[in-house]
Amino acid sequence: MDAIAVTRDDPTPRVVDLPRPEPEPGEALVRTLRVGVDGTDHEVIAGGHGGFPDGDDHLVLGHEAVGVVEDPNGTDLDAGGVVVPTVRRRPNGGNEFFERGEPDMAPGGKYYERGIEGAHGFMAEYFTSPAEFLVEIPADLAERGFLVEPVSISEKGFEHAFASRSAFDWHPESALVLGNGSLGLLTLAMLEADDRFERTYCLGRRDRPDPTIDLIEDLGATYVDSRETPVPDVPAAHEPMDFVYEATGYPKHAFETIDALAPNGVGALLGVPEDWDFEVGGGRLHREFVLHNKALVGSVNSGVQHFEDAVDTLRSLPEWLFDDLVTGVYGLDEFERAFVDDETTIKTAVQFDSR
Amino acid sequence: MDAIAVTRDDPTPRVVDLPRPEPEPGEALVRTLRVGVDGTDHEVIAGGHGGFPDGDDHLVLGHEAVGVVEDPNGTDLDAGGVVVPTVRRRPNGGNEFFERGEPDMAPGGKYYERGIEGAHGFMAEYFTSPAEFLVEIPADLAERGFLVEPVSISEKGFEHAFASRSAFDWHPESALVLGNGSLGLLTLAMLEADDRFERTYCLGRRDRPDPTIDLIEDLGATYVDSRETPVPDVPAAHEPMDFVYEATGYPKHAFETIDALAPNGVGALLGVPEDWDFEVGGGRLHREFVLHNKALVGSVNSGVQHFEDAVDTLRSLPEWLFDDLVTGVYGLDEFERAFVDDETTIKTAVQFDSR
Repeated sequence: MDAIAVTRDDPTPRVVDLPRPEPEPGEALVRTLRVGVDGTDHEVIAGGHGGFPDGDDHLVLGHEAVGVVEDPNGTDLDAGGVVVPTVRRRPNGGNEFFERGEPDMAPGGKYYERGIEGAHGFMAEYFTSPAEFLVEIPADLAERGFLVEPVSISEKGFEHAFASRSAFDWHPESALVLGNGSLGLLTLAMLEADDRFERTYCLGRRDRPDPTIDLIEDLGATYVDSRETPVPDVPAAHEPMDFVYEATGYPKHAFETIDALAPNGVGALLGVPEDWDFEVGGGRLHREFVLHNKALVGSVNSGVQHFEDAVDTLRSLPEWLFDDLVTGVYGLDEFERAFVDDETTIKTAVQFDSR
Repeated sequence: MDAIAVTRDDPTPRVVDLPRPEPEPGEALVRTLRVGVDGTDHEVIAGGHGGFPDGDDHLVLGHEAVGVVEDPNGTDLDAGGVVVPTVRRRPNGGNEFFERGEPDMAPGGKYYERGIEGAHGFMAEYFTSPAEFLVEIPADLAERGFLVEPVSISEKGFEHAFASRSAFDWHPESALVLGNGSLGLLTLAMLEADDRFERTYCLGRRDRPDPTIDLIEDLGATYVDSRETPVPDVPAAHEPMDFVYEATGYPKHAFETIDALAPNGVGALLGVPEDWDFEVGGGRLHREFVLHNKALVGSVNSGVQHFEDAVDTLRSLPEWLFDDLVTGVYGLDEFERAFVDDETTIKTAVQFDSR
């Protein structure tokens, strides 16, 4: 079967021929429909993330997949049902995080991540997965099912951040997303659809005309150009933010978030930056944290429940959003176009088959 | 009546003669028993904190009080009952935070703090307070009732920090208190009494023999000398910490806490530092936050429920702790000794009357 992979000696994604996988007991065989591309895939390709499976010199890419159950193989899944796979898998022997159903809370070394770290991804005509890691979704969501995984990332980020505000009577109104990449824009749409937030903002560094700025404004949110309004200036230029969602991986933003927050606000940190040492107003930031009851919550990956929540969320988002957000879905004959990342692309996917 | 106050032109605490206050409708008159002294009082005296009440050139000190209801004045309180006052009071007109019963969540400008910011404290033979801000405590706890306020600070800090871990199945075992002042030691005792934590640590910078190190070890905790083991080295020297409680006001500790935490751990920040700019490993810290699902939660002040919880906690702590922790209780004739802060003192109080 065809698959898209990188090899240890060549980081350029290309089509390779691999044997169709055979499901082990407890696993189902899935026929792949679409697989999305995101920043993590670009990091894997650049070599700054992840690792090859032991003993293999290639890594099949892709962790945002949707497919159809080709062979339930004795599991509870229905043949022909549409499913989305979660990303983390047990390393040899498993551990308590998987036993609790919370692999997203496992520390490094206690998981593989399909398509990212130590396990092959889903960019292949077929893949196998334990049934417990395949989330069933309605058939009419099949075409956009590759967005379930990124939405699930924000479901978890929201859940953890809002839990930190559950000890008191929190009345958020304003939310700021840092980053106008595909995850930032999807998250902005989620916040716009969330009755708790009355005003939403999204920060980027683009000139008009720009498709992401159009999308931000079509959602009813306010675009904040970080070149004119740095994050610490957002409260003065707009308003203090009850919730900040960091989706840039730019580490100064993690600290600047404290300044952007309103009293009693929370920042969710989702980006994964490289090392970078810099000066901060540490005394002032520490004081702000304390005197205004602020919180910062880091969040990575997501669990089965977040995938299930993401299915409902995906259905609640406006139809036009998907047309504007998904700028390209490409077949295997032109799959390279899905890996182009410029100012005309927002979200792309590779199509392996149709339902 | 006698009171202990500072004036705008003289920051030295001294005894002043003031008229005995008359309770307004809804207020009770309280005869003061004891008032504790803490770091905030020293900051008030040093002028680095707080403010004088409008129109007065003196500020009565003290926010950690216990007293006896002298005149219920038509409120539901019982004459002769032992009460502890909370600290924050409505500014003119009140606001939604007081309406919700959460004055501890009010931002700057939306509260007075008795003995700290804009309102007289409790270091006087009598004080008045709205009955809603007087927490009844059992009479047998009267002598140590001035510790209810500091314990309530940690009740809130714990509640907010642990809330941030409520979105998953958290199994903490290790806890580190940064700071061996009276709040740090009280908090360490609370964590030792908490079944959730199997191993506790307390960081300071003292040489043996030292009464705080003795107290730490008598509690069954491990003393960490920050001169030998800086906070980021704690995981390697001891173990990663599921919970860190910062009670130093030393701003580098706020950021170093991220390194001291175990995966999925949370740091509660309680200190209130001055401005200080310094370099941090911002990229690494941001990445640590995200990849290991860590959280930092700032917390200030406390509400009525935290005071009520603190009463139960105070009773659960071992009797010997109070003998070792409270190094001096002084009458008005030698009240200056309660404001001495050296390596022989841990917690002190001024005694105005006995029950």
